[in-house]
Amino acid sequence: MTSNMQKYLDKAQVLIEALPYIQRFNRKIIVVKYGGSAMVDESLKRRVIEDVTLLKLCGFKPIIVHGGGKEISKWVGKVGKEAEFINGLRVTDAETMEIAEMVLGRVNKSLVQLVESLGVRAIGISGKDGNLLQVEKKLSDGQDIGFVGDVKKVNAEILYDLLEKDFLPIICPVGMDEEYNTYNINADDAACAIARAMKVEKLAFLTDIEGVYKDPKDPSTLISELEIKEAKELITDGYIGGGMLPKLQNCIDAIESGVSRVHILDGRIPHCLLLEIFTNKGIGTAILNQKESRYYDGEQ
Amino acid sequence: MTSNMQKYLDKAQVLIEALPYIQRFNRKIIVVKYGGSAMVDESLKRRVIEDVTLLKLCGFKPIIVHGGGKEISKWVGKVGKEAEFINGLRVTDAETMEIAEMVLGRVNKSLVQLVESLGVRAIGISGKDGNLLQVEKKLSDGQDIGFVGDVKKVNAEILYDLLEKDFLPIICPVGMDEEYNTYNINADDAACAIARAMKVEKLAFLTDIEGVYKDPKDPSTLISELEIKEAKELITDGYIGGGMLPKLQNCIDAIESGVSRVHILDGRIPHCLLLEIFTNKGIGTAILNQKESRYYDGEQ
Amino acid sequence: MTSNMQKYLDKAQVLIEALPYIQRFNRKIIVVKYGGSAMVDESLKRRVIEDVTLLKLCGFKPIIVHGGGKEISKWVGKVGKEAEFINGLRVTDAETMEIAEMVLGRVNKSLVQLVESLGVRAIGISGKDGNLLQVEKKLSDGQDIGFVGDVKKVNAEILYDLLEKDFLPIICPVGMDEEYNTYNINADDAACAIARAMKVEKLAFLTDIEGVYKDPKDPSTLISELEIKEAKELITDGYIGGGMLPKLQNCIDAIESGVSRVHILDGRIPHCLLLEIFTNKGIGTAILNQKESRYYDGEQ
Amino acid sequence: MTSNMQKYLDKAQVLIEALPYIQRFNRKIIVVKYGGSAMVDESLKRRVIEDVTLLKLCGFKPIIVHGGGKEISKWVGKVGKEAEFINGLRVTDAETMEIAEMVLGRVNKSLVQLVESLGVRAIGISGKDGNLLQVEKKLSDGQDIGFVGDVKKVNAEILYDLLEKDFLPIICPVGMDEEYNTYNINADDAACAIARAMKVEKLAFLTDIEGVYKDPKDPSTLISELEIKEAKELITDGYIGGGMLPKLQNCIDAIESGVSRVHILDGRIPHCLLLEIFTNKGIGTAILNQKESRYYDGEQ
Amino acid sequence: MTSNMQKYLDKAQVLIEALPYIQRFNRKIIVVKYGGSAMVDESLKRRVIEDVTLLKLCGFKPIIVHGGGKEISKWVGKVGKEAEFINGLRVTDAETMEIAEMVLGRVNKSLVQLVESLGVRAIGISGKDGNLLQVEKKLSDGQDIGFVGDVKKVNAEILYDLLEKDFLPIICPVGMDEEYNTYNINADDAACAIARAMKVEKLAFLTDIEGVYKDPKDPSTLISELEIKEAKELITDGYIGGGMLPKLQNCIDAIESGVSRVHILDGRIPHCLLLEIFTNKGIGTAILNQKESRYYDGEQ
Amino acid sequence: MTSNMQKYLDKAQVLIEALPYIQRFNRKIIVVKYGGSAMVDESLKRRVIEDVTLLKLCGFKPIIVHGGGKEISKWVGKVGKEAEFINGLRVTDAETMEIAEMVLGRVNKSLVQLVESLGVRAIGISGKDGNLLQVEKKLSDGQDIGFVGDVKKVNAEILYDLLEKDFLPIICPVGMDEEYNTYNINADDAACAIARAMKVEKLAFLTDIEGVYKDPKDPSTLISELEIKEAKELITDGYIGGGMLPKLQNCIDAIESGVSRVHILDGRIPHCLLLEIFTNKGIGTAILNQKESRYYDGEQ
Repeated sequence: MTSNMQKYLDKAQVLIEALPYIQRFNRKIIVVKYGGSAMVDESLKRRVIEDVTLLKLCGFKPIIVHGGGKEISKWVGKVGKEAEFINGLRVTDAETMEIAEMVLGRVNKSLVQLVESLGVRAIGISGKDGNLLQVEKKLSDGQDIGFVGDVKKVNAEILYDLLEKDFLPIICPVGMDEEYNTYNINADDAACAIARAMKVEKLAFLTDIEGVYKDPKDPSTLISELEIKEAKELITDGYIGGGMLPKLQNCIDAIESGVSRVHILDGRIPHCLLLEIFTNKGIGTAILNQKESRYYDGEQ
Repeated sequence: MTSNMQKYLDKAQVLIEALPYIQRFNRKIIVVKYGGSAMVDESLKRRVIEDVTLLKLCGFKPIIVHGGGKEISKWVGKVGKEAEFINGLRVTDAETMEIAEMVLGRVNKSLVQLVESLGVRAIGISGKDGNLLQVEKKLSDGQDIGFVGDVKKVNAEILYDLLEKDFLPIICPVGMDEEYNTYNINADDAACAIARAMKVEKLAFLTDIEGVYKDPKDPSTLISELEIKEAKELITDGYIGGGMLPKLQNCIDAIESGVSRVHILDGRIPHCLLLEIFTNKGIGTAILNQKESRYYDGEQ
Repeated sequence: MTSNMQKYLDKAQVLIEALPYIQRFNRKIIVVKYGGSAMVDESLKRRVIEDVTLLKLCGFKPIIVHGGGKEISKWVGKVGKEAEFINGLRVTDAETMEIAEMVLGRVNKSLVQLVESLGVRAIGISGKDGNLLQVEKKLSDGQDIGFVGDVKKVNAEILYDLLEKDFLPIICPVGMDEEYNTYNINADDAACAIARAMKVEKLAFLTDIEGVYKDPKDPSTLISELEIKEAKELITDGYIGGGMLPKLQNCIDAIESGVSRVHILDGRIPHCLLLEIFTNKGIGTAILNQKESRYYDGEQ
Repeated sequence: MTSNMQKYLDKAQVLIEALPYIQRFNRKIIVVKYGGSAMVDESLKRRVIEDVTLLKLCGFKPIIVHGGGKEISKWVGKVGKEAEFINGLRVTDAETMEIAEMVLGRVNKSLVQLVESLGVRAIGISGKDGNLLQVEKKLSDGQDIGFVGDVKKVNAEILYDLLEKDFLPIICPVGMDEEYNTYNINADDAACAIARAMKVEKLAFLTDIEGVYKDPKDPSTLISELEIKEAKELITDGYIGGGMLPKLQNCIDAIESGVSRVHILDGRIPHCLLLEIFTNKGIGTAILNQKESRYYDGEQ
Repeated sequence: MTSNMQKYLDKAQVLIEALPYIQRFNRKIIVVKYGGSAMVDESLKRRVIEDVTLLKLCGFKPIIVHGGGKEISKWVGKVGKEAEFINGLRVTDAETMEIAEMVLGRVNKSLVQLVESLGVRAIGISGKDGNLLQVEKKLSDGQDIGFVGDVKKVNAEILYDLLEKDFLPIICPVGMDEEYNTYNINADDAACAIARAMKVEKLAFLTDIEGVYKDPKDPSTLISELEIKEAKELITDGYIGGGMLPKLQNCIDAIESGVSRVHILDGRIPHCLLLEIFTNKGIGTAILNQKESRYYDGEQ
Repeated sequence: MTSNMQKYLDKAQVLIEALPYIQRFNRKIIVVKYGGSAMVDESLKRRVIEDVTLLKLCGFKPIIVHGGGKEISKWVGKVGKEAEFINGLRVTDAETMEIAEMVLGRVNKSLVQLVESLGVRAIGISGKDGNLLQVEKKLSDGQDIGFVGDVKKVNAEILYDLLEKDFLPIICPVGMDEEYNTYNINADDAACAIARAMKVEKLAFLTDIEGVYKDPKDPSTLISELEIKEAKELITDGYIGGGMLPKLQNCIDAIESGVSRVHILDGRIPHCLLLEIFTNKGIGTAILNQKESRYYDGEQ
C-alpha cells in the first residue's frame, strides 16, 4: 500500500471515529455562545463556523448566540462618542443602543454570510424577531445604566419553528421590554436563557481562557470536569472571580434548568468545538450535574 | 336610538363592508415596497404598519420590502464620508456598504419592533438569510459603481417557509453574489424580484407621488388604471421620465411575470394601503394586464 | 383634504381599531346561540350572519346553534295540529317531532345559504350527524312530555374535524338517545353543552331582552358585567325569573366548565355581536368568573 | 365435526370469499343513488344501509345520494297543495320547494340515524352545504317549471374533506344557483354529477326494475353487461324508453367522464348492493366502457 | 325466489352479521401467535393467513408472531446435528442458533409470500430489525442452555412505524442482547412481550389444544372464559401443568399489562381466528380481567 | 502546541474537509451493491458497514443490496447437494432455492445486526416483502435453469416508506413471479433495478477488481472515469469480457435510466466507499453520462 493510500485510509479512520459522537447528538440542540478572540481573528472565525456548519450537516441542531463588544466600541468611537462602563457593564444611552443594534446586526449578517458560503441555510435574527427575548431593565447595584436588559422570557417557539424549517439560527442579543423598547443583553446571559428555555443538550461558551482553574494563577490546576456541587463550593470559597464568576453562575443555572452539559471552551484553539464534541480530547472545563452521569461511557 | 349607538352601528357597517375584500385576498401574498415619506414620518410609518398588520390578521400574507436611503446618508455623514452618486445610483465602496448594511439592519429591526408591538409575529431578514437574494454586480452605463447588485435569483422557498410558520417577513435589500460578497440592492428592484418569483397577487409601491400622470405637469391627468399595453406606449411616447421610468418598468415586468396587479400608491396618504385594498376608493395608479380582468366586479 | 377623503380615512380608522380585538380572538372558538327576533326579522338575520361571517374571515372559529320555535308552530298549525306546552316546554309527540325536525332542517339550510352567499364555507348539521348530541329523555316535573331531550354527551370531535376543514358549522338542536330515537333539544341547552364540551372562549346568546336586570321592571338596573358569584346570589335572592332563570343557569354552568366568558346580547340591535366583540361598547350582560379577569385591558 | 360447527365454518368461508372484492375496492369511492322501493320499504331500507355501512367499514368510501319523491308528495298533500307535473318533472313553485327541502332534509337525517345506529360516522348534507352543487334553472321543453335545477358545477373538495375525516356523506339533491336561490335536483342527475366530478370507481343506481332489457316486454332479454357503444345503439334504435332513457344517458355520461363502471341494480332485492360487489352473482345491468376491461378476472 | 338466489342472500346475511365485530375492532391492534399444527398443515396455514389478511383489510391491525420448531429440528438433522433439550428448552449452541435463524427467516418469508399473494402488504422482520426485541440470556434452573433469550425490552416504535405505513408485520422470534449477539426466543414469550408493550386489544395464541380445562383429562371441563383471578387459583391449586403453565402465565401477564383480552385458540379448527372474532361462537378459552367487562354485549 | 494537540487538529481538519461532500449528497439516495471479498473478510465487512452507517448519520439515504454466493454453496454442500452452474448461473432447483433463501436471509440479518450495533436503525427485507421485486423466469440461452429470475418491476414505494421512517434498508435478492413463486436474483441486477426505479444519485458496486481496464492484462490501463459512450465502445470493440460485461451493461442501463453516477469500486480496499464519497481520491471506475457533468467542480 502506498503511503498516499495510507494517508487516505487514515482520513477514513478519523471519519469513522466520529460515528459514535454523531449518533449521540443526532437531532439534539446545541447552543454555542460565540465571542472573544474567536470572533475577531478571521481564521479562528472561519474555524468556528466550519465546526458549527459540520454539526448542522451531521444532524445536530446548533444555535449560535453572538456578541460584538469590540466592534461596538469601534463604531461608538467613529461617531465621536466615548464608551462608558459601570461595574463592567456598558452604559447604554439611546444613541449607544442605536449604534450597538446596527453593529450587532451587521456582525449577525456576516456570520449568516459565512455559514451560507459553506452551503448551509442560516437565518440571522435578534431577540426582537418574533419577540424572542423579552427583557426588563437591568440595574447595576441599583444604578440605571440605560438600555441594558435582563432576559425575562424566551419565546422558544420561534426557534423550534426555524429549526423545523432546517435553518441554522444565529442570534444577536438585543431584545425588547413590555413597552417594546430596545435593550442590549449580555450575550452570555442570552445564550444561557435560550439554553435553559429549550433544555438543550449542550451549551458551549467560546471564551479567551483555557477553562476554570482551582487556582487561576496556576495553569496546572485547570479543572476538566466540574459537578455543580463543586462549582458552588468554588464560588463560596472565593476561588472564582472576575468575568468567570457570572459565567460560572450561568453554567450552574443552565444545568439546574435541565441543560445536560455546559462547556467553557478555549475559543483560541482552532476547531475547539469540533474537538470537544467529536473526540475524546477534553477541551476546557465541562460543568455537569454529577460525574456519574458522564455520557462518554455506556450511555442510553 | 341614541347618537352614540348610531356611531357604533356606523362602525359595524364599515367592518361589514370589508367582508368582500377580506374574502377576495384571503391567503393571498401581497408584497409591499415600503419607502419614501411613509418611512420618515413617524405617524405615517405607524399607519403603514397598522395596515400591514391588519392585512396579516385578516388572513392575507403580506411581505414588506423596505429601503433606507435617507438614513444611510445620515450615517455616512456621521462618520465623515461623503455620499457619491452616479446616474442616481449610490457609489458603494466597501465602507459605504458596511454602513448601509448596518443602517438597513437597524431600520429592519425597528419595523419588526413596530409589528410586534401590534401583536403580530414578525421576522426581519436580509437577502443574505437563506441566500434569499442572489445578485450580480450592476454596472451603470458600463461604469463600476461598487457593491450595487442586480437580483439574479430569488430563493423564494425561504419566504414560503416563513409564511407557513405564520411570520410576517420584513426584508431589507441586501444580497450576495456567487462569491458571497455583500451588495446593496435597489429596494424597488428587490420587491419586484420577489413579487415575480412568487407570482404574488399584488405588489404595492408606497411612493411620494400621487401616481402615474399622462402629463406630469397636469395633476388632472392622473391615471387610475393602466393596462401594460398602455404603459408601454406611455414609455415609448416619452411621457414617462425620472424615477418613474424604472418603477413603471418594474411594474410591467411584474405583471408579465404573473403578478395579478401592481399599485403605485401615494404613501403620504395615511392608510393608503388599507384604502386601496378595503374600499372602492382608488388610490394612485393600478397597473394590470387587461382592464377586462378588473376583479372589482363579479370576479372569481 | 376633501371631505370625501376624510370619510375614507375614518373608515380606515375603524378597521384599524379592530386590530386588538382580531388579535385577541384569533383562532378562538365562539359559540353563538342564534334565536329570537334576530331569526325572524330578515334584516336582523342578515346582520347576524354578516357578523359571524366576518368573525370567520378574521380568523375566529364561530359555531352557530339555532332554534326555530315560531316556524315549528307555524307548520304544526299548517297540518292541522295544535301545539301543546307543559311548563313552557313543547309536548313533542312523534308527529310533532317529525315536523320539528323538518322545519329545523330547513331553517338550518337557509342559514347555510346565507353564509355561503357571503363567500364562506358553511356546513349545516344536526346533533344526529356524527352522533354529535347524545341525549336522554327530559321529564318536566316528572311528567313525560314526549321527544324532548337533555344533552348527555357532546361528541366534540365532529366539530373539531369540521373546523379543521375550515367549515363554519351551523347546528340545529336535534339529537338521539341510546336507542337512536330522535329528540328535540332546547337550543340554549344545546349551545351551552357544546360550549362546555369544547371549553370555548366565548358563548353568546342572542335574545330579545337587553340583558340581566337587578330589577326587571327598572331598565336602569341593567347589569353589564356579572361574576358568577353575584349571578348565583341574584338567583338565590329571587331576582331572576321566567325564561331568564334557565338561561342564567346555563351561563353559570358554562363558566364553571371552563368557558371564558358568556354574553347575553340583545339580538334586536343590528350587529350586536360585532359591537360586543370589536368595540368597547358593552352590549347586554357579560357573565364571567371574576371581574379581575377582564381581558379588555392590556393583558397578554 | 358437529353440524353446528359446520355452520360456522360455512360462515367463515363466506367471509373469506369476500377477500378479493374487499381488496379490489379498498379506498375506492362508490356513489350509491338510493331511491325507489328500497327507500319506502323499511326492511329493504335497513338492508341497503347495512350494505353501505359494511362497505365503509371494509375500507371503501361510499357516498349516498338519495331522493324523496313519494314523501314530498305526501307532505305537499298534507298542507293542501296539489302536486303538478310537466313531462314527468314536478312543477316546483316556492312553497313546493320549501316543503321539498324540509322533507328531503328529514329523509336525509333519518338515513344518518340509521347509519349511526350501525356504528359508522355519517354526515347528512345537501348541495347547499359548502355550495356542493351549483345549479342553473332547468327548462322542460322551453317551459319554466319553477325551482328545478341542472347541476352546473360540483364542488367536490367538500366531499374529499369529509371523506378524509372518515365521514360517510349522505347527500340530498338540493342546490343553489348563482344568486343563491334554492333548487330541487333530480337525484339521478345529482348522483351522476358527483360521480363524474370525482371520477369514482363505481356508480350504482338502486331502481325498481331488474335492469336494462333488449326488449322490455321480454324478461329473458335482460342485459347483464352493456358497453357504452352498445348502449348508444340501443338508444338510437329506439329500444330504450320511459324513465330508463335519461338514466341510461346518465350512465353513458358517467362512463365517458371517467367513472369505471355504472350499475343499474334492482333495489327490490335485499342486499343487492352487497351481492353485486361481494359475489360473482351479477345483479341487474352493468354499463362499462369495454367488455375487455372486466375486472372480475384476475388483473391488478 | 330461486334457491340459487337464496344462497346468495344467505351469504349477504353472513357478511352483514360481521358488521358489529368489524366496528368493534376497527383500527385495533391484534397480536396473533401463530404456531403448532396450523403452521405445518398447508391447508390450515392458508386458512390462518386468509383470516389475518381479512382482518387487515377490514381495518384491524394484525401482527403475526410465529415460531418454527419442527422445521428447525428438521434442518438441524439435515446437517447431521442432534437436537438437545433441557427442561423442554432447546439447547442452542452457536451452530444451532445459525440454523434456527436461517430456518425461521425462511418460514417468515413464506408467510410474507402467502399474505402478499392475497393482495396485502406484508413485511417480515425478526427482533433484530430496528432492534425490536432486546433480550438477555435465559437460564433454565440456573443452567446455561446457550443462545436462548428472555425479552427485556420491546422497541415498539418500529411496529407503530410499519403499521402506519400499512404493512402487516410478520415477526420471527430472534433477538439480540446488549452486545448484539443473536438469541432464539420462545415465540409465545415474544408475542406476549409485544402485546404487553403495545397494550394491544387482543392477543391470540393458536395452539394444538382446545383450550384450558378444569380437568385436562375431562374434555367436558373446557373453560370458555377465565378471569385472571380464577386463572391464578387454577395455577395455585395445581390444575395447570405442562406446556399450558407458561402459556397461562403469559396470558395473565398480558392482561395485567393492559391487553384487553387473550385467547387460547385451537389452531386445528380451520378459520378459528375468524370464528372467534367475527361470530358469537366461542372457540377455546378467553382470559380476561373481569367477566363484567365482556364486550360482547352492547357497550361503547 | 504539543504534538498531541496537533494530532487532534489534524483530525478536525479531516472532518472539516468532509463538509462539501456531506452537503452535496445530503438526503440523496445511494444504492450500494455489497458483495465479493468485502462480504467474506470480517474486517472488510465491518469497514463497509461503518461507511454506510456514517453516510446514514450524515444525512445520506443509503440502501444496501447484498448477495451471498459463497455462503450458499457452503450450505448446499452441508446438506449433501452439489452446486450446478450453467453459463455462470447457478441452476436453482426447489431445494437449492430453499437453501439459498435461508442463507441469504441469515446474511441479511447479520448485516442488520452490524448496523444496529453501530446505533443506526436497520431493516432487513427481501424482494418478497411488500412484493418489492417482481420477477419473471430467466432463461440462460433458452435453457431453463430453475428458479432464477429477472426483475420485471420494482415496487419502490416500499423503500420510500422505509426511508421516510428513517430505516436503513438492507435487501437480499429474492423475489416472486406473478404466481408468487420464489426466485433467486443476481444481486448486481437487483441493485441496478432498484437504482433505476428510484433514479438514485449514486449506485456503487463493491467488487473484487480495481475497476475497468482498457487492457485487463495491463494494470496501468485502469480507467478512472468512463462516459457511457466510451463504455459502449469498449464493449463493441471487445475489450470487456467475463463478469465485467454484465456489470458494465448494468452501469450503462443505470445511467441511461437517470442514475447520476455509477461506481465500480475495489471492495478489498478498506473504507473504499468513504474514500470515494468523502475525498477526492478516485477509487475504481466511475461511469457517468458526460465528463462535463462532473459534479466535483462547481456543481449545483
